[in-house]
Amino acid sequence: MNKADSVNGDIEKVLSFIVEIEKLKDVKRKTRPVGLDRYENSAEHSWHVCISALMLKEFADKPINIDRVIKMLLIHDLGEIDAGDTIIYQSETQEMKQKEAAGLKRILDILPEGQADTYMDLWYEFELGETADASFAKAIDRVPPLLHNLHGEGHSWRDNNVPKEKVFSVNRRIAKGSEGLWSSLENKLSGAVETGLIK
Amino acid sequence: MNKADSVNGDIEKVLSFIVEIEKLKDVKRKTRPVGLDRYENSAEHSWHVCISALMLKEFADKPINIDRVIKMLLIHDLGEIDAGDTIIYQSETQEMKQKEAAGLKRILDILPEGQADTYMDLWYEFELGETADASFAKAIDRVPPLLHNLHGEGHSWRDNNVPKEKVFSVNRRIAKGSEGLWSSLENKLSGAVETGLIK
Repeated sequence: MNKADSVNGDIEKVLSFIVEIEKLKDVKRKTRPVGLDRYENSAEHSWHVCISALMLKEFADKPINIDRVIKMLLIHDLGEIDAGDTIIYQSETQEMKQKEAAGLKRILDILPEGQADTYMDLWYEFELGETADASFAKAIDRVPPLLHNLHGEGHSWRDNNVPKEKVFSVNRRIAKGSEGLWSSLENKLSGAVETGLIK
Repeated sequence: MNKADSVNGDIEKVLSFIVEIEKLKDVKRKTRPVGLDRYENSAEHSWHVCISALMLKEFADKPINIDRVIKMLLIHDLGEIDAGDTIIYQSETQEMKQKEAAGLKRILDILPEGQADTYMDLWYEFELGETADASFAKAIDRVPPLLHNLHGEGHSWRDNNVPKEKVFSVNRRIAKGSEGLWSSLENKLSGAVETGLIK
Protein backbone atom coordinates (compact mmCIF):
# COMPACT_ATOMS: atom_id res chain seq x y z
CA MET A 1 0.00 0.00 0.00
CA ASN A 2 1.47 3.38 -0.93
CA LYS A 3 1.47 6.40 1.34
CA ALA A 4 -1.54 8.10 -0.29
CA ASP A 5 -3.65 4.94 0.08
CA SER A 6 -2.59 4.56 3.68
CA VAL A 7 -3.49 8.20 4.50
CA ASN A 8 -6.80 7.78 2.72
CA GLY A 9 -7.51 4.59 4.66
CA ASP A 10 -6.75 6.36 7.93
CA ILE A 11 -9.05 9.26 7.07
CA GLU A 12 -11.83 6.76 6.32
CA LYS A 13 -11.30 5.20 9.75
CA VAL A 14 -11.62 8.56 11.49
CA LEU A 15 -14.76 9.37 9.48
CA SER A 16 -16.26 6.04 10.64
CA PHE A 17 -15.35 6.96 14.22
CA ILE A 18 -17.03 10.36 13.78
CA VAL A 19 -20.22 8.65 12.65
CA GLU A 20 -20.08 6.01 15.41
CA ILE A 21 -19.79 8.55 18.21
CA GLU A 22 -22.99 10.27 17.02
CA LYS A 23 -24.62 7.73 19.34
CA LEU A 24 -23.48 9.72 22.38
CA LYS A 25 -26.11 12.29 21.35
CA ASP A 26 -28.71 9.66 22.18
CA VAL A 27 -27.39 8.73 25.66
CA LYS A 28 -29.75 10.33 28.16
CA ARG A 29 -28.47 11.67 31.44
CA LYS A 30 -30.41 12.18 34.69
CA THR A 31 -30.70 15.97 34.76
CA ARG A 32 -32.43 18.54 32.57
CA PRO A 33 -30.50 21.57 31.26
CA VAL A 34 -31.59 24.83 32.87
CA GLY A 35 -34.73 26.06 31.13
CA LEU A 36 -35.29 22.92 29.06
CA ASP A 37 -38.02 20.38 29.52
CA ARG A 38 -36.01 17.34 28.41
CA TYR A 39 -33.13 15.31 29.73
CA GLU A 40 -29.60 16.23 28.77
CA ASN A 41 -27.62 13.95 26.50
CA SER A 42 -24.00 13.00 27.10
CA ALA A 43 -22.68 14.72 23.94
CA GLU A 44 -23.95 18.19 24.85
CA HIS A 45 -22.86 17.54 28.45
CA SER A 46 -19.36 16.79 27.16
CA TRP A 47 -19.21 20.15 25.38
CA HIS A 48 -20.54 21.89 28.48
CA VAL A 49 -17.88 20.47 30.79
CA CYS A 50 -15.06 21.22 28.32
CA ILE A 51 -15.97 24.89 28.08
CA SER A 52 -16.66 25.02 31.84
CA ALA A 53 -13.17 23.65 32.53
CA LEU A 54 -11.65 26.24 30.20
CA MET A 55 -13.37 29.13 31.94
CA LEU A 56 -12.70 27.80 35.46
CA LYS A 57 -9.06 26.85 34.89
CA GLU A 58 -7.71 29.76 36.97
CA PHE A 59 -9.38 28.28 40.04
CA ALA A 60 -7.64 24.90 39.97
CA ASP A 61 -5.65 24.52 43.20
CA LYS A 62 -2.77 22.60 41.63
CA PRO A 63 -1.02 23.47 38.36
CA ILE A 64 -2.96 21.81 35.55
CA ASN A 65 -2.56 21.38 31.82
CA ILE A 66 -5.94 22.64 30.61
CA ASP A 67 -5.43 21.14 27.14
CA ARG A 68 -5.11 17.66 28.65
CA VAL A 69 -8.11 18.33 30.89
CA ILE A 70 -10.20 19.28 27.86
CA LYS A 71 -9.11 16.15 25.98
CA MET A 72 -10.06 14.02 29.00
CA LEU A 73 -13.47 15.63 29.08
CA LEU A 74 -14.00 15.33 25.32
CA ILE A 75 -13.66 11.55 25.55
CA HIS A 76 -14.74 10.86 29.15
CA ASP A 77 -18.24 9.65 28.34
CA LEU A 78 -17.65 7.76 25.07
CA GLY A 79 -17.87 4.43 26.93
CA GLU A 80 -21.49 5.26 27.75
CA ILE A 81 -22.48 4.54 24.15
CA ASP A 82 -22.32 0.86 25.08
CA ALA A 83 -22.73 1.11 28.86
CA GLY A 84 -25.31 3.89 29.32
CA ASP A 85 -25.17 6.75 31.80
CA THR A 86 -25.13 6.12 35.56
CA ILE A 87 -26.15 8.74 38.10
CA ILE A 88 -23.25 9.88 40.26
CA TYR A 89 -25.21 9.12 43.45
CA GLN A 90 -25.42 5.43 42.60
CA SER A 91 -22.43 3.39 43.74
CA GLU A 92 -20.24 2.54 40.79
CA THR A 93 -19.61 -1.19 40.57
CA GLN A 94 -16.52 -2.76 39.12
CA GLU A 95 -18.75 -4.42 36.55
CA MET A 96 -20.19 -1.11 35.32
CA LYS A 97 -16.75 0.42 34.97
CA GLN A 98 -15.49 -2.60 33.05
CA LYS A 99 -18.42 -2.33 30.68
CA GLU A 100 -17.63 1.33 30.12
CA ALA A 101 -13.94 0.60 29.53
CA ALA A 102 -14.79 -2.15 27.04
CA GLY A 103 -17.20 0.18 25.25
CA LEU A 104 -14.61 2.91 25.03
CA LYS A 105 -12.04 0.44 23.70
CA ARG A 106 -14.44 -0.81 21.03
CA ILE A 107 -15.01 2.74 19.81
CA LEU A 108 -11.37 3.85 19.95
CA ASP A 109 -10.38 0.75 17.97
CA ILE A 110 -12.23 2.23 14.98
CA LEU A 111 -9.45 4.87 14.81
CA PRO A 112 -6.19 4.37 12.87
CA GLU A 113 -3.70 2.04 14.53
CA GLY A 114 -1.82 3.35 17.53
CA GLN A 115 -4.46 5.88 18.59
CA ALA A 116 -6.56 3.88 21.04
CA ASP A 117 -3.93 3.48 23.76
CA THR A 118 -3.37 7.21 24.22
CA TYR A 119 -7.03 7.84 24.89
CA MET A 120 -7.58 4.70 26.98
CA ASP A 121 -4.72 5.84 29.20
CA LEU A 122 -6.24 9.31 29.45
CA TRP A 123 -9.59 7.81 30.42
CA TYR A 124 -8.07 5.57 33.11
CA GLU A 125 -6.24 8.60 34.49
CA PHE A 126 -9.55 10.49 34.58
CA GLU A 127 -11.35 7.61 36.26
CA LEU A 128 -8.68 7.24 38.95
CA GLY A 129 -8.88 10.97 39.59
CA GLU A 130 -5.50 11.14 41.26
CA THR A 131 -3.43 13.47 39.07
CA ALA A 132 -3.99 17.22 39.19
CA ASP A 133 -5.51 17.16 35.68
CA ALA A 134 -7.85 14.29 36.52
CA SER A 135 -9.03 15.66 39.86
CA PHE A 136 -9.81 19.01 38.23
CA ALA A 137 -11.59 17.33 35.31
CA LYS A 138 -13.65 15.21 37.72
CA ALA A 139 -14.53 18.30 39.75
CA ILE A 140 -15.76 20.12 36.65
CA ASP A 141 -17.78 17.08 35.54
CA ARG A 142 -19.98 17.59 38.61
CA VAL A 143 -20.63 21.29 38.20
CA PRO A 144 -23.34 21.40 35.49
CA PRO A 145 -25.53 18.68 37.10
CA LEU A 146 -25.43 20.60 40.39
CA LEU A 147 -26.45 23.79 38.61
CA HIS A 148 -29.24 21.91 36.81
CA ASN A 149 -30.64 20.85 40.15
CA LEU A 150 -30.11 24.20 41.85
CA HIS A 151 -31.86 26.02 38.99
CA GLY A 152 -34.38 23.25 38.39
CA GLU A 153 -36.11 22.64 41.70
CA GLY A 154 -33.74 19.82 42.64
CA HIS A 155 -35.48 17.59 40.10
CA SER A 156 -32.92 14.83 39.86
CA TRP A 157 -32.29 14.72 43.63
CA ARG A 158 -36.04 14.37 44.12
CA ASP A 159 -36.63 11.89 41.27
CA ASN A 160 -33.79 9.67 42.46
CA ASN A 161 -34.43 10.03 46.21
CA VAL A 162 -30.98 11.41 46.93
CA PRO A 163 -30.75 12.42 50.62
CA LYS A 164 -29.14 15.66 51.72
CA GLU A 165 -26.12 13.93 53.24
CA LYS A 166 -25.34 12.23 49.96
CA VAL A 167 -25.60 15.45 47.93
CA PHE A 168 -22.91 16.96 50.15
CA SER A 169 -20.68 13.92 50.59
CA VAL A 170 -20.58 12.99 46.90
CA ASN A 171 -19.97 16.52 45.67
CA ARG A 172 -17.42 17.47 48.32
CA ARG A 173 -14.95 15.76 46.01
CA ILE A 174 -15.06 18.96 43.92
CA ALA A 175 -12.72 20.42 46.57
CA LYS A 176 -10.01 18.01 45.40
CA GLY A 177 -9.84 20.04 42.19
CA SER A 178 -10.72 23.48 43.50
CA GLU A 179 -11.44 24.51 47.09
CA GLY A 180 -12.80 27.86 45.91
CA LEU A 181 -15.23 26.26 43.49
CA TRP A 182 -16.47 23.84 46.14
CA SER A 183 -16.87 26.69 48.62
CA SER A 184 -19.14 28.57 46.18
CA LEU A 185 -21.18 25.49 45.38
CA GLU A 186 -21.39 24.37 49.01
CA ASN A 187 -22.89 27.78 49.85
CA LYS A 188 -25.49 27.34 47.16
CA LEU A 189 -26.29 23.83 48.38
CA SER A 190 -26.70 25.10 51.94
CA GLY A 191 -29.08 27.72 50.60
CA ALA A 192 -31.00 24.96 48.85
CA VAL A 193 -31.32 23.05 52.12
CA GLU A 194 -32.75 26.18 53.77
CA THR A 195 -35.36 26.64 51.05
CA GLY A 196 -36.27 22.95 51.18
CA LEU A 197 -34.91 22.07 47.72
CA ILE A 198 -32.66 19.45 49.29
CA LYS A 199 -34.24 17.24 51.92
CA MET B 1 -12.54 43.91 48.36
CA ASN B 2 -10.03 41.32 49.63
CA LYS B 3 -8.55 38.59 47.46
CA ALA B 4 -10.87 35.80 48.68
CA ASP B 5 -13.95 37.93 47.94
CA SER B 6 -12.60 38.79 44.51
CA VAL B 7 -11.91 35.12 43.68
CA ASN B 8 -15.35 34.19 44.93
CA GLY B 9 -16.93 36.91 42.81
CA ASP B 10 -15.07 35.66 39.75
CA ILE B 11 -16.19 32.08 40.35
CA GLU B 12 -19.79 33.31 40.61
CA LYS B 13 -19.38 35.04 37.26
CA VAL B 14 -18.14 31.88 35.59
CA LEU B 15 -21.00 29.88 37.15
CA SER B 16 -23.46 32.40 35.68
CA PHE B 17 -21.74 32.01 32.31
CA ILE B 18 -22.05 28.21 32.58
CA VAL B 19 -25.79 28.54 33.18
CA GLU B 20 -26.25 31.11 30.40
CA ILE B 21 -24.61 28.94 27.74
CA GLU B 22 -27.05 26.11 28.49
CA LYS B 23 -29.16 27.90 25.89
CA LEU B 24 -26.92 26.59 23.12
CA LYS B 25 -28.48 23.18 23.81
CA ASP B 26 -31.74 24.64 22.52
CA VAL B 27 -30.39 26.11 19.27
CA LYS B 28 -31.56 23.80 16.49
CA ARG B 29 -29.38 23.14 13.46
CA LYS B 30 -30.46 22.02 9.99
CA THR B 31 -29.27 18.41 9.99
CA ARG B 32 -30.19 15.31 11.97
CA PRO B 33 -27.47 13.23 13.65
CA VAL B 34 -26.98 9.83 11.99
CA GLY B 35 -29.64 7.45 13.27
CA LEU B 36 -31.64 10.08 15.15
CA ASP B 37 -35.04 11.41 14.21
CA ARG B 38 -34.53 14.93 15.53
CA TYR B 39 -32.49 17.95 14.59
CA GLU B 40 -29.07 18.42 16.07
CA ASN B 41 -28.46 21.23 18.55
CA SER B 42 -25.44 23.50 18.47
CA ALA B 43 -24.04 22.31 21.82
CA GLU B 44 -23.74 18.65 20.85
CA HIS B 45 -22.47 19.78 17.43
CA SER B 46 -19.74 21.78 19.20
CA TRP B 47 -18.58 18.67 21.07
CA HIS B 48 -18.67 16.64 17.87
CA VAL B 49 -16.45 19.05 15.93
CA CYS B 50 -13.96 19.37 18.82
CA ILE B 51 -13.41 15.62 19.01
CA SER B 52 -13.43 15.34 15.20
CA ALA B 53 -10.68 17.97 14.99
CA LEU B 54 -8.65 16.09 17.61
CA MET B 55 -8.84 12.82 15.72
CA LEU B 56 -8.23 14.40 12.29
CA LYS B 57 -5.36 16.65 13.37
CA GLU B 58 -2.71 14.55 11.59
CA PHE B 59 -4.34 15.37 8.28
CA ALA B 60 -4.05 19.15 8.50
CA ASP B 61 -1.91 20.36 5.59
CA LYS B 62 -0.25 23.17 7.51
CA PRO B 63 1.20 22.96 11.03
CA ILE B 64 -1.62 23.66 13.46
CA ASN B 65 -1.98 24.09 17.21
CA ILE B 66 -4.76 21.60 17.94
CA ASP B 67 -5.37 23.08 21.39
CA ARG B 68 -6.18 26.47 19.85
CA VAL B 69 -8.34 24.76 17.21
CA ILE B 70 -10.33 23.00 19.93
CA LYS B 71 -10.80 26.25 21.86
CA MET B 72 -12.04 27.94 18.68
CA LEU B 73 -14.53 25.15 18.14
CA LEU B 74 -15.68 25.12 21.78
CA ILE B 75 -16.80 28.75 21.49
CA HIS B 76 -17.49 29.08 17.74
CA ASP B 77 -21.28 28.82 17.98
CA LEU B 78 -21.96 30.71 21.24
CA GLY B 79 -23.15 33.76 19.27
CA GLU B 80 -26.01 31.61 17.96
CA ILE B 81 -27.71 31.80 21.35
CA ASP B 82 -28.84 35.29 20.34
CA ALA B 83 -28.56 35.02 16.55
CA GLY B 84 -29.78 31.48 15.80
CA ASP B 85 -28.19 28.97 13.44
CA THR B 86 -27.83 29.66 9.72
CA ILE B 87 -27.39 26.92 7.14
CA ILE B 88 -23.98 27.04 5.46
CA TYR B 89 -25.58 27.10 2.00
CA GLN B 90 -27.29 30.41 2.69
CA SER B 91 -25.19 33.47 1.96
CA GLU B 92 -23.98 35.02 5.17
CA THR B 93 -24.85 38.69 5.37
CA GLN B 94 -22.85 41.28 7.21
CA GLU B 95 -25.90 41.88 9.37
CA MET B 96 -26.13 38.23 10.46
CA LYS B 97 -22.47 38.13 11.37
CA GLN B 98 -22.76 41.35 13.36
CA LYS B 99 -25.69 39.89 15.28
CA GLU B 100 -23.64 36.80 16.07
CA ALA B 101 -20.64 38.88 17.17
CA ALA B 102 -22.84 41.01 19.42
CA GLY B 103 -24.41 37.87 20.90
CA LEU B 104 -21.03 36.34 21.59
CA LYS B 105 -19.83 39.57 23.21
CA ARG B 106 -22.90 39.73 25.45
CA ILE B 107 -22.23 36.20 26.69
CA LEU B 108 -18.47 36.58 27.12
CA ASP B 109 -19.04 39.75 29.12
CA ILE B 110 -20.60 37.60 31.85
CA LEU B 111 -17.09 36.20 32.50
CA PRO B 112 -14.60 37.87 34.89
CA GLU B 113 -12.97 41.02 33.56
CA GLY B 114 -10.32 40.60 30.92
CA GLN B 115 -11.60 37.29 29.54
CA ALA B 116 -13.91 38.40 26.75
CA ASP B 117 -11.26 39.87 24.44
CA THR B 118 -9.25 36.65 24.17
CA TYR B 119 -12.26 34.70 23.00
CA MET B 120 -13.65 37.45 20.77
CA ASP B 121 -10.27 37.53 19.01
CA LEU B 122 -10.30 33.76 18.64
CA TRP B 123 -13.79 33.90 17.15
CA TYR B 124 -12.87 36.62 14.65
CA GLU B 125 -9.83 34.56 13.65
CA PHE B 126 -12.11 31.56 13.13
CA GLU B 127 -14.60 33.58 11.10
CA LEU B 128 -11.91 35.02 8.84
CA GLY B 129 -10.57 31.52 8.29
CA GLU B 130 -7.18 32.72 7.14
CA THR B 131 -4.72 31.29 9.67
CA ALA B 132 -3.79 27.61 9.58
CA ASP B 133 -5.71 26.98 12.83
CA ALA B 134 -8.82 28.75 11.57
CA SER B 135 -8.87 27.15 8.13
CA PHE B 136 -8.54 23.71 9.73
CA ALA B 137 -11.25 24.49 12.30
CA LYS B 138 -13.57 25.74 9.57
CA ALA B 139 -12.90 22.60 7.50
CA ILE B 140 -13.78 20.36 10.45
CA ASP B 141 -16.95 22.36 11.15
CA ARG B 142 -18.31 21.14 7.81
CA VAL B 143 -17.55 17.45 8.23
CA PRO B 144 -20.37 16.22 10.50
CA PRO B 145 -23.18 17.95 8.53
CA LEU B 146 -21.87 16.32 5.33
CA LEU B 147 -21.83 12.92 7.03
CA HIS B 148 -25.36 13.54 8.37
CA ASN B 149 -26.56 14.09 4.81
CA LEU B 150 -24.55 11.24 3.30
CA HIS B 151 -25.86 8.81 5.94
CA GLY B 152 -29.31 10.38 6.09
CA GLU B 153 -30.63 10.40 2.54
CA GLY B 154 -29.41 13.92 1.86
CA HIS B 155 -32.22 15.25 4.06
CA SER B 156 -30.97 18.77 4.59
CA TRP B 157 -29.89 19.22 0.95
CA ARG B 158 -33.37 18.13 -0.09
CA ASP B 159 -35.28 20.10 2.56
CA ASN B 160 -33.36 23.28 1.74
CA ASN B 161 -33.24 22.82 -2.06
CA VAL B 162 -29.48 22.88 -2.22
CA PRO B 163 -28.34 22.14 -5.80
CA LYS B 164 -25.45 19.79 -6.55
CA GLU B 165 -23.16 22.60 -7.67
CA LYS B 166 -23.57 24.38 -4.37
CA VAL B 167 -22.88 21.24 -2.30
CA PHE B 168 -19.53 20.93 -4.05
CA SER B 169 -18.59 24.60 -4.24
CA VAL B 170 -19.40 25.40 -0.61
CA ASN B 171 -17.67 22.34 0.80
CA ARG B 172 -14.60 22.53 -1.41
CA ARG B 173 -13.33 24.96 1.18
CA ILE B 174 -12.51 21.92 3.33
CA ALA B 175 -9.43 21.54 1.10
CA LYS B 176 -8.06 24.77 2.56
CA GLY B 177 -7.61 22.86 5.83
CA SER B 178 -6.90 19.38 4.52
CA GLU B 179 -6.62 18.26 0.89
CA GLY B 180 -6.75 14.61 1.95
CA LEU B 181 -9.93 15.09 3.94
CA TRP B 182 -11.60 16.94 1.07
CA SER B 183 -10.52 14.23 -1.35
CA SER B 184 -12.22 11.54 0.79
CA LEU B 185 -15.38 13.57 1.17
CA GLU B 186 -15.46 14.64 -2.49
CA ASN B 187 -15.40 10.94 -3.42
CA LYS B 188 -18.34 10.28 -1.16
CA LEU B 189 -20.23 13.25 -2.59
CA SER B 190 -19.58 12.02 -6.14
CA GLY B 191 -20.96 8.64 -5.10
CA ALA B 192 -24.02 10.40 -3.72
CA VAL B 193 -24.56 12.14 -7.05
CA GLU B 194 -24.45 8.76 -8.82
CA THR B 195 -27.02 7.24 -6.48
CA GLY B 196 -29.26 10.31 -6.85
CA LEU B 197 -28.87 11.54 -3.27
CA ILE B 198 -27.56 14.88 -4.55
CA LYS B 199 -29.48 16.39 -7.46
